[in-house]
Amino acid sequence: MSDHGSQPAKPEQPSSPEKPARNLDAYRAHYAERTAGMTASEIRALFAVASRPEVVSLAGGMPNLAALPLDSLAAEVARLISVDGQVALQYGSAHGVPELREQICDVMALEGISAHPDDVMVTAGSQMALDMVTRIFCDPGDVILAEGPSYVGALGSFAAYQAEVVHVAMDDDGLQPDALRQAIANVNAQGKRIKFLYTIPNFHNPGGITLALPRRAEILEICAQHGILVVEDNPYGLLGFDGQPHPALRSMDADNVVYLGSFSKTFASGLRVGWVLAPHAIREKLVLTAESATLCPPTLNQMIVSRYLSTHDWQGQIKIFQEQYRERRDAMLSALEQYMPPGCTWTRPDGGFFVWLTVPEGVDTKAMLPRAVTQRVAYVSGTGFYHDGFGSRQMRLSFCYPTPERIREGVRRLANTLTEEMELVRTFGTVPQRSVQGPQAPSPDTA
Amino acid sequence: MSDHGSQPAKPEQPSSPEKPARNLDAYRAHYAERTAGMTASEIRALFAVASRPEVVSLAGGMPNLAALPLDSLAAEVARLISVDGQVALQYGSAHGVPELREQICDVMALEGISAHPDDVMVTAGSQMALDMVTRIFCDPGDVILAEGPSYVGALGSFAAYQAEVVHVAMDDDGLQPDALRQAIANVNAQGKRIKFLYTIPNFHNPGGITLALPRRAEILEICAQHGILVVEDNPYGLLGFDGQPHPALRSMDADNVVYLGSFSKTFASGLRVGWVLAPHAIREKLVLTAESATLCPPTLNQMIVSRYLSTHDWQGQIKIFQEQYRERRDAMLSALEQYMPPGCTWTRPDGGFFVWLTVPEGVDTKAMLPRAVTQRVAYVSGTGFYHDGFGSRQMRLSFCYPTPERIREGVRRLANTLTEEMELVRTFGTVPQRSVQGPQAPSPDTA
Repeated sequence: MSDHGSQPAKPEQPSSPEKPARNLDAYRAHYAERTAGMTASEIRALFAVASRPEVVSLAGGMPNLAALPLDSLAAEVARLISVDGQVALQYGSAHGVPELREQICDVMALEGISAHPDDVMVTAGSQMALDMVTRIFCDPGDVILAEGPSYVGALGSFAAYQAEVVHVAMDDDGLQPDALRQAIANVNAQGKRIKFLYTIPNFHNPGGITLALPRRAEILEICAQHGILVVEDNPYGLLGFDGQPHPALRSMDADNVVYLGSFSKTFASGLRVGWVLAPHAIREKLVLTAESATLCPPTLNQMIVSRYLSTHDWQGQIKIFQEQYRERRDAMLSALEQYMPPGCTWTRPDGGFFVWLTVPEGVDTKAMLPRAVTQRVAYVSGTGFYHDGFGSRQMRLSFCYPTPERIREGVRRLANTLTEEMELVRTFGTVPQRSVQGPQAPSPDTA
Repeated sequence: MSDHGSQPAKPEQPSSPEKPARNLDAYRAHYAERTAGMTASEIRALFAVASRPEVVSLAGGMPNLAALPLDSLAAEVARLISVDGQVALQYGSAHGVPELREQICDVMALEGISAHPDDVMVTAGSQMALDMVTRIFCDPGDVILAEGPSYVGALGSFAAYQAEVVHVAMDDDGLQPDALRQAIANVNAQGKRIKFLYTIPNFHNPGGITLALPRRAEILEICAQHGILVVEDNPYGLLGFDGQPHPALRSMDADNVVYLGSFSKTFASGLRVGWVLAPHAIREKLVLTAESATLCPPTLNQMIVSRYLSTHDWQGQIKIFQEQYRERRDAMLSALEQYMPPGCTWTRPDGGFFVWLTVPEGVDTKAMLPRAVTQRVAYVSGTGFYHDGFGSRQMRLSFCYPTPERIREGVRRLANTLTEEMELVRTFGTVPQRSVQGPQAPSPDTA
């Protein structure tokens, strides 16, 4: 990602064709401008190391699938292929299997949403849905408002369409309405167009925070007043640990909210089945766009989800996941209390997968990562979750995947690393801050 | 698609927010420029009618899956989920399952390609691979050379990135080298950049034509000389009816060809598993791009393909498909000979799914389509396969899906329709040509 405000470099115009023997990439001068900042993340190399079994990875956003009823699922899928294989293994429409779209409306009803199946489009995961929404709305230079921090996968999509991201501050109750008003005013004063507000209102990735109920109405009102579409990304909404889910933003405003949902965290991530719910005209454009991107989402996977929803106690399964993740959250929070040196603060999520940790001043979490991996623990540095280079005093800790014991051990190792780092800072002075840079490409292990 | 050479309309800049009550799409002014020509195809409405069982559809590009061994496939998939479900149902990498990438190299070897699994990226269908390739190379206004006609799904992707398509003439031996030289010279003289040549060398969709062997070397040489990348799209290469496949372009030039492959026609379309093989640096950028588009392709589907390739006689299955499609081609060609009125010509494919029919002057195949559907037969008008509005004297006929008997009946109905249309032309004069317009959005039933 280029620095905020500077132009991406124009590709060279060769007068004679490149000879492959002279450089490693004969097509270096041919790439589109949107690829200008696209480089392999140095973090990815580190994560190849971090995925070794002796490392406790608190970095991954992978759901824990151990509790899935694999045998009965296998039997159901076998039936699907034997009996309906000629449909399940055939092209479908970009709109998505009709029965599944109806069932998706039943799932969304749990968060107060009332919708028509026709306004739902199924996608190969909600990442693809977000990519399609950005594709139909954003021209290069358009502004997208997002929480600060925001989901690394979303920042990657926005960068691919050369949109400018303006982060808006959160507190323990989520996005701050006054900060939102101020950001809108600033962007308007610069003469730029805001295309939408991107928000993850429940068990935020990476922040762990949930948007408080009174704020939901206020934020919808601010956006409606300024003609700003709201894109509500809600993969974790049903993974709260206490009580009922909050009503979705879409349940409070059907005209100005585009809602993204997913089965990745409530069922299975490897199926890549998500969806977008949008006002009709938007949904029509999304189907046209999705056709050129992928023809149609996989029919088999949609029918697997549909059969699963019909034949299994999927709500009971979600409860099992909730308990599983609650136990892990408790392990992480108690370990943080027990081990972290003074000066650290962290969020206390009521659901989802993530804790957002802030370290004392002087420590750079990105610079510290290699030392953490040497001590056999991994996390994602906060800088990956900002468009504009902030986040070097923060890190995201995932509690979704390892066992509670491993989580405690990982936090212990992290605390050791941090204590040593703070000693270095005291001895040698503040570790120099890295220059402003943007998000790395998202990858499933850090999504 | 806007007319060749004109600018897409700029979205309005409202001074006050749109009120939803006043128009059907409150966000009409918010869409990106790339959506300017994106409208629901009137053909799609017609195809809703055309998909009724009493209509013989010669329009669809859907493979015929009746011959798949569904029961043994079902058993294999059940084993996969029961035993390896925690991997198969989990996120994977955007690069793709390593074992499958190795197997893909074995599949490509059948067409002479020698490749390293690391240079393969798996995608959710080859449509997605093409979309990603276009995304990393094309800025708005860049030129893509393509055969005339070309695949509607590709034209849709190119339009989404606001690339300009310049069609290059084919004859019975495929893309014409002199026409290619001329097109390159014309585009260079206009000061525009050619980013790549997009070609479907085997059993062309929609043309049915195969690029003759001597032409392959010549075209590669022309492109290499001008520093033009070649994107080789080859979903049908293994579905020839006689003898061995031609060597792929990629087998003759590993440095300047990006190869797109698919399991949709040789195994199962509803799985959405395809791939791209590219020089290393390009492949690296493709993985980064794919991550922001979709995180990763579905793990389950990749493992299904991998298991299928390991445990089933997939080459024997392809032979079964070849025979099945050969029988259907023969039915179509003999029915065309028997029924078509004088003045019609058509291609005679040696494999694949499609025949390209040219009707006598004065007949407009797009205007004729409603009358054909009334006579209970459907096809895809040639205009969908050109960027620039040509093709109104052509149509694509698919023989892949219906039975041989239905194919003959469909051609008979089509010949009736055509005969009546020609009578109308003789009586009332030439049906007015439609104004220049571009391709409709692709959909799986016309892909």
